[in-house]
Amino acid sequence: MSLEPLSPETRSLLAEISTATLTSQLMARGLRNTFMQKVHRLTTGGPSMVGEAFTLRYIPSREDIDVSAVFEDRSHPQRRAVETIPSGHVLVIDCRQDIRAAGAGSILVTRTMMRGAAGVVTDGGLRDSPTIEALDYPVYCGGRSAPTNLTRHHAVDINVPIGCGDVPVYPGDIIVGDREGVVVIPRHLADDVAQQGKEQTLMEDFVTERVLAGQSTFGLYPPNAETVAQFEAWKKRK
Amino acid sequence: MSLEPLSPETRSLLAEISTATLTSQLMARGLRNTFMQKVHRLTTGGPSMVGEAFTLRYIPSREDIDVSAVFEDRSHPQRRAVETIPSGHVLVIDCRQDIRAAGAGSILVTRTMMRGAAGVVTDGGLRDSPTIEALDYPVYCGGRSAPTNLTRHHAVDINVPIGCGDVPVYPGDIIVGDREGVVVIPRHLADDVAQQGKEQTLMEDFVTERVLAGQSTFGLYPPNAETVAQFEAWKKRK
Amino acid sequence: MSLEPLSPETRSLLAEISTATLTSQLMARGLRNTFMQKVHRLTTGGPSMVGEAFTLRYIPSREDIDVSAVFEDRSHPQRRAVETIPSGHVLVIDCRQDIRAAGAGSILVTRTMMRGAAGVVTDGGLRDSPTIEALDYPVYCGGRSAPTNLTRHHAVDINVPIGCGDVPVYPGDIIVGDREGVVVIPRHLADDVAQQGKEQTLMEDFVTERVLAGQSTFGLYPPNAETVAQFEAWKKRK
Amino acid sequence: MSLEPLSPETRSLLAEISTATLTSQLMARGLRNTFMQKVHRLTTGGPSMVGEAFTLRYIPSREDIDVSAVFEDRSHPQRRAVETIPSGHVLVIDCRQDIRAAGAGSILVTRTMMRGAAGVVTDGGLRDSPTIEALDYPVYCGGRSAPTNLTRHHAVDINVPIGCGDVPVYPGDIIVGDREGVVVIPRHLADDVAQQGKEQTLMEDFVTERVLAGQSTFGLYPPNAETVAQFEAWKKRK
Amino acid sequence: MSLEPLSPETRSLLAEISTATLTSQLMARGLRNTFMQKVHRLTTGGPSMVGEAFTLRYIPSREDIDVSAVFEDRSHPQRRAVETIPSGHVLVIDCRQDIRAAGAGSILVTRTMMRGAAGVVTDGGLRDSPTIEALDYPVYCGGRSAPTNLTRHHAVDINVPIGCGDVPVYPGDIIVGDREGVVVIPRHLADDVAQQGKEQTLMEDFVTERVLAGQSTFGLYPPNAETVAQFEAWKKRK
Amino acid sequence: MSLEPLSPETRSLLAEISTATLTSQLMARGLRNTFMQKVHRLTTGGPSMVGEAFTLRYIPSREDIDVSAVFEDRSHPQRRAVETIPSGHVLVIDCRQDIRAAGAGSILVTRTMMRGAAGVVTDGGLRDSPTIEALDYPVYCGGRSAPTNLTRHHAVDINVPIGCGDVPVYPGDIIVGDREGVVVIPRHLADDVAQQGKEQTLMEDFVTERVLAGQSTFGLYPPNAETVAQFEAWKKRK
Repeated sequence: MSLEPLSPETRSLLAEISTATLTSQLMARGLRNTFMQKVHRLTTGGPSMVGEAFTLRYIPSREDIDVSAVFEDRSHPQRRAVETIPSGHVLVIDCRQDIRAAGAGSILVTRTMMRGAAGVVTDGGLRDSPTIEALDYPVYCGGRSAPTNLTRHHAVDINVPIGCGDVPVYPGDIIVGDREGVVVIPRHLADDVAQQGKEQTLMEDFVTERVLAGQSTFGLYPPNAETVAQFEAWKKRK
Repeated sequence: MSLEPLSPETRSLLAEISTATLTSQLMARGLRNTFMQKVHRLTTGGPSMVGEAFTLRYIPSREDIDVSAVFEDRSHPQRRAVETIPSGHVLVIDCRQDIRAAGAGSILVTRTMMRGAAGVVTDGGLRDSPTIEALDYPVYCGGRSAPTNLTRHHAVDINVPIGCGDVPVYPGDIIVGDREGVVVIPRHLADDVAQQGKEQTLMEDFVTERVLAGQSTFGLYPPNAETVAQFEAWKKRK
Repeated sequence: MSLEPLSPETRSLLAEISTATLTSQLMARGLRNTFMQKVHRLTTGGPSMVGEAFTLRYIPSREDIDVSAVFEDRSHPQRRAVETIPSGHVLVIDCRQDIRAAGAGSILVTRTMMRGAAGVVTDGGLRDSPTIEALDYPVYCGGRSAPTNLTRHHAVDINVPIGCGDVPVYPGDIIVGDREGVVVIPRHLADDVAQQGKEQTLMEDFVTERVLAGQSTFGLYPPNAETVAQFEAWKKRK
Repeated sequence: MSLEPLSPETRSLLAEISTATLTSQLMARGLRNTFMQKVHRLTTGGPSMVGEAFTLRYIPSREDIDVSAVFEDRSHPQRRAVETIPSGHVLVIDCRQDIRAAGAGSILVTRTMMRGAAGVVTDGGLRDSPTIEALDYPVYCGGRSAPTNLTRHHAVDINVPIGCGDVPVYPGDIIVGDREGVVVIPRHLADDVAQQGKEQTLMEDFVTERVLAGQSTFGLYPPNAETVAQFEAWKKRK
Repeated sequence: MSLEPLSPETRSLLAEISTATLTSQLMARGLRNTFMQKVHRLTTGGPSMVGEAFTLRYIPSREDIDVSAVFEDRSHPQRRAVETIPSGHVLVIDCRQDIRAAGAGSILVTRTMMRGAAGVVTDGGLRDSPTIEALDYPVYCGGRSAPTNLTRHHAVDINVPIGCGDVPVYPGDIIVGDREGVVVIPRHLADDVAQQGKEQTLMEDFVTERVLAGQSTFGLYPPNAETVAQFEAWKKRK
Repeated sequence: MSLEPLSPETRSLLAEISTATLTSQLMARGLRNTFMQKVHRLTTGGPSMVGEAFTLRYIPSREDIDVSAVFEDRSHPQRRAVETIPSGHVLVIDCRQDIRAAGAGSILVTRTMMRGAAGVVTDGGLRDSPTIEALDYPVYCGGRSAPTNLTRHHAVDINVPIGCGDVPVYPGDIIVGDREGVVVIPRHLADDVAQQGKEQTLMEDFVTERVLAGQSTFGLYPPNAETVAQFEAWKKRK
């Protein structure tokens, strides 16, 4: 995990590419399972999300261990995650796709925002969702869920590989989210995916323009030689 | 399947009747399973949806067959469906209620719109959902799902009987959608259901008016003789 | 069930406390399962919901019993529930978490509103959801579902203990709903939970203010002695 | 529910008819939802099960109410059910299809057997399943589940209409179980279903004999006039 | 689909290879989704199953179409499938993973056996399961389910590509089943998979023998050069 | 985790106590969630299972990382777990309740048996289940599943806290399994639970004897003073 930080250029490119396009790029590289299942955008405002994964892992809770007093301990993983996540990173929380309780609430989500994190993602629930919803900040979850994490979830680790939404997430993987959902890009593929995804996005913008002008998709999408030529000309005009 | 096209009058009536009322009309004819389960309206704009079913069937995909190059083949069922669906018809896509991948994306959905289709329905996912969402066009799906169909779905047939949202759909059935969801009306029942549904809608408008005026539902809903008389008078005034 | 009516003061306090805070108060009293699962707010307008539970119980329907004519009987439990629910109470409908059919529709929901009920909650579906959605009234359900209750549900009892969203609901329990969802407070705990929930809400408002000002959560949330003192001072200033 | 007791003749006939045949008889009478879903035979020994339904209803449990001491109360519904079920009846327990805890254990199941009940059915779990499994007694459940009912279930009523395995069960309905599962026959249909089910069983025995002799199913199943004549001759020979 | 019939040699080899080994062989060829999910062996007797897929497709049923009389029509797909499946083929039935009703019953299953089919597989239910269970014949299903197919399923096609247990099945694919479950081998891979699967089986037999003799799995499984040499010697001795 | 090893006496006691009784003992100590959900005994032979938890954690697999060659690495967590699990311990594998692929197969399960482990438990699948099934060794899983772990699961950690069957498992917890399923006993409670579970078992044996003799459960279960006296006398006679 000694990879270099995500370059500003790649970060900037990824913010303009849809998760649909990114999954296509990843499938072209043999990766079919990269889009988090049953994880949805909670906030209506805020930008797209791009950042390195910083992970938090929960296991099921136990009544004698998971009591309110645990939060007084500064080394508690949930609190430690929130206070140590680096700027520009995304907090990705593995709740085992169980939304019967929250993985976090508005105070901790807000704290990550204030510390410069790029967003929060969990396949569990989020509490105080009406408050979170109003933030200009990318937040994704499996559902609105008032109960505190202690009722179902026990925070056990930070920055280990996890599953989230049935997708593997390794610390440092690049997490991208738009209004559709969240995609996980293996760290070493990010630059290449961003470059080619940019090109694919331009092509699809061109195709969409042609379709809205009434053209058939045959020969257009995927493009034949004539279409490619027209696309190149279109790019120059832009 | 040699039925006559849907008459403009029935099409126009159905556009004004709620799916709730239509399911009641169908239940009165012995059909209890006519509302698609877990299929939701994606677009916020656009009219209600009414049209004959034009179907597309997927089976699970296979890694060696379902590769990007397949789309270059004009006879690929997904592309053929989009380029051959008649004006006024609804594209209904059977994804076996599996939303882990998309049944279509914004370019193909837009193309059906440009070709004059009446809408798109799938019990799978749709990709590019933020783009689709902005169309003034009726689109329904099981969920937002970035991965291309090839990751999970293989298009195999067009215009055969299918299941969608756990409801049988025969080509030519009348598909009606409002903000609540999608109902499937067997083709031969459409005219009759439209006529009686219109009458039921008027009655429920009258009942709602009375309820908002403070009247009890006893004797009103369902109506006794006195209420029926008042309803007839109310209709004349309208 | 001879408890006194909910006091106006407690009702008023509960309307200002989030369901997240209420579940924390209940967990502190040993109750971990108080938030209804898979039950969501349908209406975007209207206040928070607070009221005593008035229950309606469904079992699966049977084709020979559950025919449209049943609604002509004034003693039919669904209709009786709607016409007898006391002012200020919440109609809570047990549909066994089955949203394949509706527990009620817009006419009956509107009637409860006109009769002064505090809201409607079901873990089944609701039909005429686009009409209900526009009411300034708290309504919660498991999903939009056009089919009439008779297709799947048979109303069998009113005001007996039920399950709703996997939570036990006893008649007279206090039901509170906000934009996040619905919590069930055992009747005898309501006053105490309201008082302490009010205090917790103030504290979390203070904490949120501090977090938005850039303060770390360590020592703040949960509060150490210094934070408690600052909070007391803050409260006085307010 | 003032129906006469199940006649010995009908009871005896039903014990010889498969649940598959019974569901066909019920479908021919317009009832499509009569077979309990996800409810399986636990015991390998013992006869088929036939008896009138005697019901027990659970709702979700609550930590402050559902404590071990409740069983000391003779009026506790679970214990009262076991000690009052009439001879020849089947105890049918509604656990809301939740098998995370048991609806009963070996001691109570054994007690119903000793009191002459005809069997036990639940859509929840059963505990002490290895002990129950060895009884020569019909027992059906949703799964093996060690936790006591109190962890998830609260017994609330006896002999009210319930759902079990997604099928409505009214007290007095006739419950029949074989190695395939459990079917619910509305009380007033039992005699007729038994008579015609007997005839259908004979016909299918004849058909099976013919199929094993190598005959095609065309004209045999369903039978044409010639097959009917052969069947009548076969019946006489038997 | 003009492939040659399955050779006796390959058929014979596949009968001796476990589905676990076959999925490994297929994964080595890039196919990860070849094992039917939630499909289990029903019969305890009978051989392993090997044969070409002969498919039957169901969609959801409709009350006005799916009535008992349909079976009198010889062209009804379910009956036609049973009477035309070639010897040595496996009848694979797509029930959309819905076990609420049966895909077939004992009479039709027995008929396929008498006609020389190699087995029956469905991801739906099977009725008359206690009778089927006793056959010396490979039969697999999603569960025991008494209701006739008409209550939920409508037979619509034979010998088209289908999904079964979330796996694609093309007519002519090779279907292999053991006590673990069912694997689908694309037709063109069958000979090669059989040859290499045979070799893998021998190796795993050798490894199991060594593990039972107390050897560590390091260097043994997967084998290093020394182990490979020992394996070659072992094979010669056998 | 510096607790002393499980004493032979406690181990021996636990082997004679049912998981039903153990969950009751744990519920009496405030722990309601201790029985693994959807985890079943695979082997029909072999003793009950008692041992300290030794854990293996999987996350979802990724196509570029999870290739067959990984098993050649001795530090691969799955292989390391099998070769380092101490005698008398139970291998508990967290597969996130996903049975679409196996957590292990017969060779590795057999190896743990040869090394003296007390059993294997996973909430995922197991492959080569027909071979495993025949071992005289306690093995539990979520289902039979031929595909190798690499198709869905990536082994990432050994001996960290995990979830299994929706229950928290800490390394060193005491895992007990009988024919009903698997219970997790927090390490520090094991001796006490064993002692009191032994007493409860005796009492229930006595109660069962009385019930089989025809006695009512009132006053017997739970026991009143007279029953307690009879029980004490019964114990002396034994």
